[in-house]
Amino acid sequence: MLNQEIQAFISNDESAQFYECGYSCDSAWLLKVYNDIIFITDSRYSLEAKELSTKNTQIIQSANLIDTLCEQINKAGIKSLTYDNSTTSVLTLENIKIRCKEVDLIPKPRFHQSLRIKKTQDEIRKIQKSQMLNAKAYDILAEFLRTQHTINNAAITEKTLQFQAKIFLQDFGNYDLSFEPILALNHNAAKPHALPTNTPLKEGDLILFDAGIKFDRYCSDRTRTALFNPQINFDKQQKFTNKKHQQIYDIVLKAQEYAIKNTHAGMRASEVDALAREVIHKAGYGEFFTHSTGHGIGLDIHEMPFISPRSDTIIEDGMIFSIEPGIYLPGEFGIRIEDLVYIENGRAKIL
Amino acid sequence: MLNQEIQAFISNDESAQFYECGYSCDSAWLLKVYNDIIFITDSRYSLEAKELSTKNTQIIQSANLIDTLCEQINKAGIKSLTYDNSTTSVLTLENIKIRCKEVDLIPKPRFHQSLRIKKTQDEIRKIQKSQMLNAKAYDILAEFLRTQHTINNAAITEKTLQFQAKIFLQDFGNYDLSFEPILALNHNAAKPHALPTNTPLKEGDLILFDAGIKFDRYCSDRTRTALFNPQINFDKQQKFTNKKHQQIYDIVLKAQEYAIKNTHAGMRASEVDALAREVIHKAGYGEFFTHSTGHGIGLDIHEMPFISPRSDTIIEDGMIFSIEPGIYLPGEFGIRIEDLVYIENGRAKIL
Repeated sequence: MLNQEIQAFISNDESAQFYECGYSCDSAWLLKVYNDIIFITDSRYSLEAKELSTKNTQIIQSANLIDTLCEQINKAGIKSLTYDNSTTSVLTLENIKIRCKEVDLIPKPRFHQSLRIKKTQDEIRKIQKSQMLNAKAYDILAEFLRTQHTINNAAITEKTLQFQAKIFLQDFGNYDLSFEPILALNHNAAKPHALPTNTPLKEGDLILFDAGIKFDRYCSDRTRTALFNPQINFDKQQKFTNKKHQQIYDIVLKAQEYAIKNTHAGMRASEVDALAREVIHKAGYGEFFTHSTGHGIGLDIHEMPFISPRSDTIIEDGMIFSIEPGIYLPGEFGIRIEDLVYIENGRAKIL
Repeated sequence: MLNQEIQAFISNDESAQFYECGYSCDSAWLLKVYNDIIFITDSRYSLEAKELSTKNTQIIQSANLIDTLCEQINKAGIKSLTYDNSTTSVLTLENIKIRCKEVDLIPKPRFHQSLRIKKTQDEIRKIQKSQMLNAKAYDILAEFLRTQHTINNAAITEKTLQFQAKIFLQDFGNYDLSFEPILALNHNAAKPHALPTNTPLKEGDLILFDAGIKFDRYCSDRTRTALFNPQINFDKQQKFTNKKHQQIYDIVLKAQEYAIKNTHAGMRASEVDALAREVIHKAGYGEFFTHSTGHGIGLDIHEMPFISPRSDTIIEDGMIFSIEPGIYLPGEFGIRIEDLVYIENGRAKIL
């Protein structure tokens, strides 16, 4: 799994840990030297780590993780060690340097995400299943909205609806959320990452819903914008009663479909970003598409490749990322449409 | 609010940001120079930041947070700037140093938690309210367990019970969790931070439940260990049918009560830790009390003062922390009892 250049690394990142040894927790360091994996954690997690990690993982319980990590680094007798300088704190690096004077510490931002940037068939299947289960929750939420008028015996508000959506997404405890879902009505949807309020839901409202779950630790992510009426659904084809809603929706949908259709292996990620941006810019709303077109996804909800105007990553088969253009009119409303695509035989296919 | 020594600081920590300006998000930097607060965030959050932050906060929208932060640092014309080297990444510090050559960057681990270590009356009220609402969810869960035998039409398992507990804790969307609650049965409770399994709940089971919510962003935290039978409650006084459960429970309860009773202002945090540890050690179970006695709490679920054998912090009036001894017998069961205390007139009082 490792690039030839990276023969030894350390990581306290949970996704990297899980990828390497099948277990992770919020208080641990992983040391990988060639194929030897050492997982150092405290007494709260060591039992579980032993039970759940892969067989080739050596679990060491420690009350001082950095001390133990450095002992193990020194014991391994390696000359150089890669670490992620975008997630390792200044203090941690100092503490390691003091104790591991003979080892050359090589900074590589997001090095483990780079290792995971092209997904295996098994990973693609897991992300696909995650997104399928995620989409199912959208259907359950739509069915709920078509038939129920209260939540916990009170009028439905943005906040209670977001909570109800979380219950459906988690399927009563079977799945974790991959992020706190965004459920925003009307002008609150003009904030791409809105916090839910106590605004009551009423017919004719525009609902922006951006959510994802984790299946076997792999994230999904999807956004739909829909009209709330007794026939509500979260399909991509939407009929709005408000003309401006429809006009903006059609631009965003065109941008999203255009970007998916024209993405191909060999392009830079910035060129993929430009595909969606171009459609929105030509329609006269360029200044209201205020974020990147998409992001990679896997064990992390946001990982490489980043589909932004500044990203030089070359798109390749096996990559999975979101395509999620949006237009946000402050004080009025916002529209975003998001799917995940994977690159196969050079083209983008919706997961 | 600032120590006299800290006249200017930067922070990307959400608790520090919220404390200083009433708003925070996961993509922002805050710069405070004397009483001037500048909050730099991207387009996804800038509208909300303007609406929700305090009036003296200047919000700057930026597509490159570090560039903008450094421009503002240079513009402020300050000679020195404090930052938290335990949370700032190596890469971020490098990027700031390159752009702010004239400014002396002073590393102080957890400096903002230090500023918040003694709580104001308003903060004490909020943590008290948070803990009160948290305790209420324990009562609702106990009532549920006394009357219901299924969750979503299926037998109750550790996993579905944990999910049901989360619904009660969040009061249908009114409160956030302060951490993922731990709900562990029997031998799973021997792992201080157990993940829930599909084990079905049955009469006579021991249930360890460790949970907290956030009220107005302030965390609560509480652990009870109880016997599951038709009269279940999460009171501190428990009658177990299994003699060993009762024996261990009584030791842990004695340790907790002894520590609370004998904690006083002027002690070192390590001496508070030793109070609980001494009781458990004398009873012959010292090696099975594998974590610290407690931790401070406020905007962060774990903050200063840390009540551990290595903590030199002097206990003072206004501090709030948990007292949570436990005994964990691998493969058998675990017991933990946790309350929050605040120090008033030199003594510890349960919140």
